[in-house]
Amino acid sequence: MSLSLNQWTTRRWSVAEAVAGCVRHDLEAIGLWRQDVAEQGLAETVKLVRAAGLRVSSLCRGGFLTAGGLPGEEGRRAFAEALDDNRRAVDEAAELGAACLVMVVGGLPGVRPGEPLGERIGRTPGEGPAEPSPFSRDLAGARERVAEGLAELAPYAGERGVKLALEPLHPIYCPDRAVISTLGQALDLSLPFPQEQVGVVVDTFHVWWDPQLFEQIARAGDRIASYQVCDYLHPLPADVLLGRGMMGDGVIDFRPITRAVLEAGYRGDVEVEIFNADVWAADPDEVLATMKARYADVVLPA
Amino acid sequence: MSLSLNQWTTRRWSVAEAVAGCVRHDLEAIGLWRQDVAEQGLAETVKLVRAAGLRVSSLCRGGFLTAGGLPGEEGRRAFAEALDDNRRAVDEAAELGAACLVMVVGGLPGVRPGEPLGERIGRTPGEGPAEPSPFSRDLAGARERVAEGLAELAPYAGERGVKLALEPLHPIYCPDRAVISTLGQALDLSLPFPQEQVGVVVDTFHVWWDPQLFEQIARAGDRIASYQVCDYLHPLPADVLLGRGMMGDGVIDFRPITRAVLEAGYRGDVEVEIFNADVWAADPDEVLATMKARYADVVLPA
Repeated sequence: MSLSLNQWTTRRWSVAEAVAGCVRHDLEAIGLWRQDVAEQGLAETVKLVRAAGLRVSSLCRGGFLTAGGLPGEEGRRAFAEALDDNRRAVDEAAELGAACLVMVVGGLPGVRPGEPLGERIGRTPGEGPAEPSPFSRDLAGARERVAEGLAELAPYAGERGVKLALEPLHPIYCPDRAVISTLGQALDLSLPFPQEQVGVVVDTFHVWWDPQLFEQIARAGDRIASYQVCDYLHPLPADVLLGRGMMGDGVIDFRPITRAVLEAGYRGDVEVEIFNADVWAADPDEVLATMKARYADVVLPA
Repeated sequence: MSLSLNQWTTRRWSVAEAVAGCVRHDLEAIGLWRQDVAEQGLAETVKLVRAAGLRVSSLCRGGFLTAGGLPGEEGRRAFAEALDDNRRAVDEAAELGAACLVMVVGGLPGVRPGEPLGERIGRTPGEGPAEPSPFSRDLAGARERVAEGLAELAPYAGERGVKLALEPLHPIYCPDRAVISTLGQALDLSLPFPQEQVGVVVDTFHVWWDPQLFEQIARAGDRIASYQVCDYLHPLPADVLLGRGMMGDGVIDFRPITRAVLEAGYRGDVEVEIFNADVWAADPDEVLATMKARYADVVLPA
């Protein structure tokens, strides 16, 4: 296993700067985000990573397939748009030779990431919602939409040599970002498809609490498409999206998880993906130095 | 099933006021908290609930058994103190004739509820923690301490006719409040003990997201000792403890969960426990009226 920088850990850096930073710090791989790749230009990004001799450990991200759960025409249109966008993401991942396309599958239909549910919800004392909800509470249905979307996308990805990596997110993100909350659930969704087409992500921030974590990592075996590490801060900041911390700054005991991922057969890159206001404010070169030292200190098994 | 007021839903009310409120609103049961019972006086509380003809659907709470995971003498003392406090809680539950004693089992050893991890954690760039952690990251060990504590307490509770109700908490509370995060995990911990001694709590706020929820409710069957309902607000407030909302104000689809709990055989009271700054600021009588209406509108199956 070798260390990889997910570029949002040094978010102020452009793709070109992040690639140069990886070279400066002797990293062999980088995880990229679609919008940053678009800013740099896809062809230019391909040139940069090849010239630097870097592997692209992942492209973030596809997914958000659940809006199809909205009723009628709105739902059909949202589902079709999501599939089109995911096909574009697959094409970009193929261009970049990314090891996988990370899939954040989406939350409850009509709930937008980080946005409130809407003023109309349940504000009338003594009555149910005054008007029909602008979103759906059908969690089981949303999970079915994900399976339907994968059935559309997996063959398309397979033809282009791209692996879709289903990422279970911490249950706190279930309403708005991912109705896949556990590794076992992600694994169950991946099994109908060839392993070359659909795998799973093990991200310590999202799964560290799971009582079934170690049995599910063993069960996942070669389905593990990406291993991402960052710590879980406690208490979480008001914006829970920024609760990801440098390894050693939170509550996670990394070594047993890394050992389990190794024993499951994973030999890919280990991506460090940290969304954190303090880390983003720090000097990116210092962040990379700390990241490398902490990786050796607390992530790698003795 | 019949509706029960957990007294923290109308937190500004004393036990006496909450009992009077239940009578005023034709409720048959109330859920009590130890510190409020202590303020009213245990004997006086027993008199009040009997005179009002109320059932005590639960006493909150026992638990916090994981501090025993701290090293050496400190751990041994913390574990012994926790067991003593839990025995007192069992005695109080017996006095009150409570249907169960709710057990919030505790988080990582040394992490205090709602408090930060401590300044010393992982703040040294390029190194691990500068000093030994004031807490333990041994999640598996903490879970073993819970099982050990239950082995001590279950027979004691059984002799007094009290049922310990293990409550899985949402994974966001895993660091500081409960290393039991799923219903299946709570059930596994309960099975070594007679059903009269150890059961489980189904609290919609904590378990709504769980992909295994319905199969685990069916599996729980008669082990379900308490069914608590409140909604899951999105986004959560900065103080995540206050993210519990009135039914209908959040993302939970209650009817399928209530139906599953009924099909599992549960016929006890349905407790409404809401920690929410707006609800606490409102007129408690209005809160009870809204609670009853919402229960009929969105919680009870059609």
